[in-house]
Amino acid sequence: MKIYEFATNPSSRRVGIFLKEIGVEVDRVQLNVREGDNLTPEYQEKSVNGKVPMLELDDGTTISETIAICRFFAEHSGKTELFGETPVEKGKVEMWQRIVEFDGLYAGFQAFRNLSGVYSDRERCVPAWGEESKLRVQEFLPKLDKQLSRNDFVVGDKLSVADITAFLFVGFVCERALEIDVLETYPHIQAWYQKLADRPAFQ
Amino acid sequence: MKIYEFATNPSSRRVGIFLKEIGVEVDRVQLNVREGDNLTPEYQEKSVNGKVPMLELDDGTTISETIAICRFFAEHSGKTELFGETPVEKGKVEMWQRIVEFDGLYAGFQAFRNLSGVYSDRERCVPAWGEESKLRVQEFLPKLDKQLSRNDFVVGDKLSVADITAFLFVGFVCERALEIDVLETYPHIQAWYQKLADRPAFQ
Repeated sequence: MKIYEFATNPSSRRVGIFLKEIGVEVDRVQLNVREGDNLTPEYQEKSVNGKVPMLELDDGTTISETIAICRFFAEHSGKTELFGETPVEKGKVEMWQRIVEFDGLYAGFQAFRNLSGVYSDRERCVPAWGEESKLRVQEFLPKLDKQLSRNDFVVGDKLSVADITAFLFVGFVCERALEIDVLETYPHIQAWYQKLADRPAFQ
Repeated sequence: MKIYEFATNPSSRRVGIFLKEIGVEVDRVQLNVREGDNLTPEYQEKSVNGKVPMLELDDGTTISETIAICRFFAEHSGKTELFGETPVEKGKVEMWQRIVEFDGLYAGFQAFRNLSGVYSDRERCVPAWGEESKLRVQEFLPKLDKQLSRNDFVVGDKLSVADITAFLFVGFVCERALEIDVLETYPHIQAWYQKLADRPAFQ
């Protein structure tokens, strides 16, 4: 099996960190998404959403969507802890993973794509929605900081897939793409971010 | 335990259909979201995202987010089939559930909220993004129809949580809120929709 990815893409990095944390190695094929390597008819036929990352199994089955790929590897290797262990933990991990994704990461993606026009060769942009999305990202950050003021990780005292999503949200989307000074502004996010950055899988 | 919901809200209906399909009954508390019943400080303190549906356990633990609530009940009751059974099935269900949600349901929510201004008392609207989101919904529908031309359900030959999401997307969001004639236009979606509508849990 192999993963099609664009190494610098935050979704590809989420899968990469997840796999390192559970100790699974998989072959990779690099596609340069900025140059449109994923827009070929062959790739679009294989991939339901047309995006990277995509996992291709040896029988030709393909699985797109970051969290779906992580879920497959967790179940396949039996290392499912990052999705929670009890029913309540599984529910809470899913809740936080989704909230960080929708209110954080995806709002940030919409901000960046609509403001920068980086993919204006393949999608219509609405700059006013980019501005609004950036505001929503800024409104979400205090909620994340509050949660991390009460907990070592996003969901209680254990690392979960929600931390991986939040790590890419803070470092890649806020700090780098949107130039929001999160770490300078939010002390609890900063302490948590540094603790994650020290883990081998996050480097 | 009890679920706070707004019975006509599509996310609350998704949880309701899921629970009927797995045969679990739970007490409900109705909140009128349109009138702002979910905006009280007490509710906002309990709920991480401030929305309905929200599950409250007897010890006070709360779980928000539709899919997180479904996941909790699946694990709690041991009836996890709607999330898939093998690692590959689990990956494919998660992939389709997410694609239908992002490219369908949530694009539709963004279209409706930004165009209608239904929640303009509590969020800033960008009509141009509403128009763009409605176009994206219309571009997604042929993909869903193609998938249903090859499969009895969204993911192969078995009902999954992705069908529940897609059912609300087609009926509630497209047909009702956005006035898009999906069933008249897409024959494979129509056949699948009718098959689901005949199941007791979907009525």
